[in-house]
Amino acid sequence: MRDVAVVGIGIMKWGELWRKSFRDIFTEAALNALDDAGLDKIDSLIVGCMSGGLFVGQEHVGAILADYIGQKNIPAARVESACASGGLAFRQAYIEVASGMSDIVMAGGVEKMTDVSGDGATYALATAADQDYEVFHGVTFPGLYAMMARAYMKKYKTTRKQLSAVPVKAHKNGSMNPFAQYPFPIKLEDVANGVKVADPLHILDCSPITDGAAAAILTTVDIAKKMKKPYVRITGTGMATDTIALPQRESLTWLKSTELAGKRALKMAGRKITDMDMVEVHDCFSIAEIIVTESLGIFKKGEGAKAAARGVTALDGKIPVNPSGGLKSKGHPVGATGIGQVVEIVKQLRGDAENGRQIKGNPKVGMTQNMGGSGASAVVHILEVA
Amino acid sequence: MRDVAVVGIGIMKWGELWRKSFRDIFTEAALNALDDAGLDKIDSLIVGCMSGGLFVGQEHVGAILADYIGQKNIPAARVESACASGGLAFRQAYIEVASGMSDIVMAGGVEKMTDVSGDGATYALATAADQDYEVFHGVTFPGLYAMMARAYMKKYKTTRKQLSAVPVKAHKNGSMNPFAQYPFPIKLEDVANGVKVADPLHILDCSPITDGAAAAILTTVDIAKKMKKPYVRITGTGMATDTIALPQRESLTWLKSTELAGKRALKMAGRKITDMDMVEVHDCFSIAEIIVTESLGIFKKGEGAKAAARGVTALDGKIPVNPSGGLKSKGHPVGATGIGQVVEIVKQLRGDAENGRQIKGNPKVGMTQNMGGSGASAVVHILEVA
Repeated sequence: MRDVAVVGIGIMKWGELWRKSFRDIFTEAALNALDDAGLDKIDSLIVGCMSGGLFVGQEHVGAILADYIGQKNIPAARVESACASGGLAFRQAYIEVASGMSDIVMAGGVEKMTDVSGDGATYALATAADQDYEVFHGVTFPGLYAMMARAYMKKYKTTRKQLSAVPVKAHKNGSMNPFAQYPFPIKLEDVANGVKVADPLHILDCSPITDGAAAAILTTVDIAKKMKKPYVRITGTGMATDTIALPQRESLTWLKSTELAGKRALKMAGRKITDMDMVEVHDCFSIAEIIVTESLGIFKKGEGAKAAARGVTALDGKIPVNPSGGLKSKGHPVGATGIGQVVEIVKQLRGDAENGRQIKGNPKVGMTQNMGGSGASAVVHILEVA
Repeated sequence: MRDVAVVGIGIMKWGELWRKSFRDIFTEAALNALDDAGLDKIDSLIVGCMSGGLFVGQEHVGAILADYIGQKNIPAARVESACASGGLAFRQAYIEVASGMSDIVMAGGVEKMTDVSGDGATYALATAADQDYEVFHGVTFPGLYAMMARAYMKKYKTTRKQLSAVPVKAHKNGSMNPFAQYPFPIKLEDVANGVKVADPLHILDCSPITDGAAAAILTTVDIAKKMKKPYVRITGTGMATDTIALPQRESLTWLKSTELAGKRALKMAGRKITDMDMVEVHDCFSIAEIIVTESLGIFKKGEGAKAAARGVTALDGKIPVNPSGGLKSKGHPVGATGIGQVVEIVKQLRGDAENGRQIKGNPKVGMTQNMGGSGASAVVHILEVA
């Protein structure tokens, strides 16, 4: 397999973008990535998108986006693994470059979530759960994660304040991210006083509905060197799946797919989890970040919430988690989220994070963890300075 | 890149399968493929599915199907390129094995299209067209292909009889395929007398709505040799895209993406189109097969319809096209169609085609051409005997 690098990243301001279309937002991010790489031509496009069909009535996503970013006639694929679609696109692009099939591949992600009315977004998101054994019976994602939160909080005697520490930290980081949907700080009491969505989760425990896109350009390390631009190496990729339906899992307080994807990526990179200078993880709900950090081995079982409350995961903590602001503050355009994580880690490794968000001490190794549904799929990547 | 082979294929009876679910039909095809390969474990799954969201309210398709076929925890991806999703899955599986990332990958395809009511299937299929510039204005797929048929028939003075030769040949072949949805012969006058769908296309010019699944197991040629089972080599893969919207194309009577995908696959295989002993192509409408055979270079411009009428594409013709019965007779479960084509070519190369459908003279090289929408994406593969 050939060594692979990221030579360009592109993102745009995420939010409720009423005046922009599905193809508009992807084009904006993709052209930013091409500009960043100093390229005007790619060999292949792989786009993560969870549900073009339900959100905007548009499937055939690869072909239409290749055309709109000025790359008509190239091979173009759309990949989907629910909210891990972006991470999956990055993985498939990595494999395509590593294989020798293509030299320059764009991994993109996009979701336009606000064009549906009524409970359209809730229905579309619920298709990431088991339609027959969960959704049909009325469960939606806040409900599924609330069950995980209840089980976790009871098992480990977690307090409301510990849980709230996660979104408070996310918003503090996100307030320094010019591309974030909600770039402002919140307080612990804001979380506790927010409207309850699914007990014990309040509104500020939940990531928002977001329109957004992001893109990264991958090529071989050999080509990257010749481009004489800063590049970041991809040293590990890991993916794993689990049952979709929560009742079929071995545990409600552990994410097996995240554990396995993390181990696979670390093994490939020849790294230990303690080598990571920072991580971007899938905090679709406050409880998700806590269980993810434990399943990746960053913290011991039952220690994730306490560590967050002690500031261990803060920007200046021992292991910064979600320096970008995470899904909570930056936003969660489901198909784009995994690429958004890559954009942040690449910025941090280049020393380019904006507005004082840059992690001190020249970080050299970072990880992204992107997750689908209530954890039925997980994709992990390790990125390192050249 | 490592040399890649197909060591197992699986299909099931396609049709309107009211008593079987989305996961049921994929499981049936996937287990048949595992049986055929003599394996009970795969390293990775890639599934083509056009719109799990709109047809059955189920995205996160890779994870759920990996679990239901007994392969929990493996990496699993769903890929989509409208009706070329199956071909795309085969291509991505090829790349994954060739790269060295995985040794044994299942390429699957599935679509459960009959669980929607009213015009649900028509709407879901229309998401393969341009939502903003085609669908919004009321165009559906029979309409798009009817425009292509009108332009072609006027340009080349094609007769109704010549057009009808395509579905008549499809049904003759399909009548010998035990897995076909409509395994019976039809006559030229049946096509002309059938109800008009979108002038000049009548009902028997159109492929049906189908529930179906298919799967293939890919591994390296080195591993295939050790398995001591018949295997088929994949010597070429090509993909290309075009504008989705028909009015933005250079020509209504030419499929640029098919031309390019064909050339790319042939170049990779070191083959000419005249080397093919048979082809499986995307005959979603009678006119599609005609324009595809020309765009691939099998016939000159304007000669495709005449050649079909002369029997050149029959099972005992100079170049058999769609020995399986094609989308018209075998059925068109959109995400599975591309893998169904691979199943047929592998059978023909092994000498395993059922019921007198086997092409005479020990065919050695075959091609599959799978297409999305009105041709905005095309995926071509070359398969050869070991």
